[in-house]
Amino acid sequence: MGLEDFLPSGNERLDSQLRFTAEIDKMTAVLRRTLLVDGSRRENDAEHSWHIAVMAMLFQEYFPEPVDLGKAVQMCVVHDIVEIEAGDTFAYDAAGNLSKAEREKEAADRLFAGLPADQGRYIRGLWEEFDAAVTPEARYALCMDRMQPFFHNTLTKGHTWGNGTVKRAAVEARMAVVKENMPEVYRWMEKNMDRGVANGWLGE
Amino acid sequence: MGLEDFLPSGNERLDSQLRFTAEIDKMTAVLRRTLLVDGSRRENDAEHSWHIAVMAMLFQEYFPEPVDLGKAVQMCVVHDIVEIEAGDTFAYDAAGNLSKAEREKEAADRLFAGLPADQGRYIRGLWEEFDAAVTPEARYALCMDRMQPFFHNTLTKGHTWGNGTVKRAAVEARMAVVKENMPEVYRWMEKNMDRGVANGWLGE
Repeated sequence: MGLEDFLPSGNERLDSQLRFTAEIDKMTAVLRRTLLVDGSRRENDAEHSWHIAVMAMLFQEYFPEPVDLGKAVQMCVVHDIVEIEAGDTFAYDAAGNLSKAEREKEAADRLFAGLPADQGRYIRGLWEEFDAAVTPEARYALCMDRMQPFFHNTLTKGHTWGNGTVKRAAVEARMAVVKENMPEVYRWMEKNMDRGVANGWLGE
Repeated sequence: MGLEDFLPSGNERLDSQLRFTAEIDKMTAVLRRTLLVDGSRRENDAEHSWHIAVMAMLFQEYFPEPVDLGKAVQMCVVHDIVEIEAGDTFAYDAAGNLSKAEREKEAADRLFAGLPADQGRYIRGLWEEFDAAVTPEARYALCMDRMQPFFHNTLTKGHTWGNGTVKRAAVEARMAVVKENMPEVYRWMEKNMDRGVANGWLGE
C-alpha cells in the first residue's frame, strides 16, 4: 500500500503534484506533545495545522493590524510540513530547538524539490515568511500556533508542562508574540498561567 | 479534562470563540471510511480537511476558471465541521445520503449558534456555498474533496470500494464534478478505475 501503487497520469507535472499530495499524508504520523482537548491521545501535525487554520478565521479582531486572511490560512496549513522530514521539536526542548532551523532547512530542500519549481517556491515562501514572523500574516499565524497548544494545555491539566517541570517564565517567553500582538488574548493566558501555577501544572 | 476546565476571559465574545475552538477539536474523532495513504488506520475529518486545503494550493491550474484561492482554502478547512454533530456519511451509502442534508442543517443550527452571530454567518455561509457547488471556489473545493479519497483508494487497494462491492458507475457519478471541471485530472481517474476493475477492487 502507498505510493508504490501510484498510477502515473502521463503528465509529469501532475504526477509530481499527486506524489507530493500522497507524501504529505505523513503529517498524520508526526505526533506532537499536545493532547487532544478530550485528553484521549496526542494530536498530530495534520490535526494541529487544520485547527489553527480554523482559528485564524476567528481571532483576527484581537490583532491590531489588517491581515490577508486567505494568506494567513494558507500559512497555517503548510507551516509544519517540513516536520515530515525534520520531526516535531518540543517547544520546551532547548537542545532540540538549537538544531531545529538547520534540520528544517535541509528538510525543506528535500521535500519541496518534489514539487514543480514554481509551487515549491510558493509553499516554501509561505513557510519561510511564517518562520521569519515579520509580516502581519506571519505574526498572526504564529499567534494561532502559540495559542492552540496553550489552550489545549489549559484543558488537559497542563499536560505538556509536565506537572510543573516547565517553568512559567519559559511559557511567557514562548507566548511573547501573543503578548505583543494580541494583548487581550494574552490577559486570558495570564489568568491561565496563574491557575496553572496554583494547581502545580506549571512551575513558578 | 476538556471544556469543563475552561477558564473564562471575562469577555463573552472571546469566550464563545475559544469555546468553539475547543468544540471543533471533536473533528479529530469523526472517522471517515478512507484509510490513510500508508493504510495504517482510518483518517479523521480534521486530517481530511487539512489535506484537501493543501491540495487546493496545488491543482488550480487544471480548473478552467479563476479561483480565489484564499477563499477556497477556507472552504476546505470548514466544509466538514457540521459532521461533529451530524457524523460522516459514507459516500456510497444511499440511505444515509437521503437524510444527510436535513441532519447537517440541524447540526449547523446547533453548532454555529455557539459563535458570535457575524462569525457564525460567515462560516456557515462558506459551508453552504461549498454545498451548493455553484461558485468556482465551491466547485474547485468540491473537486478536491472528491479527488482526495479517490486518490487514497487508489493507494490502498480500493479500500472503501469494498472489494468490488461499490460499482464503477457509482464512482463515476460521484466524480462527475471532477469530470466536468478538471478533465485532465479525470482522465487519470479513469485509468485508476480501469485498474480498480481489473484488480477486483471496484465492481464493473
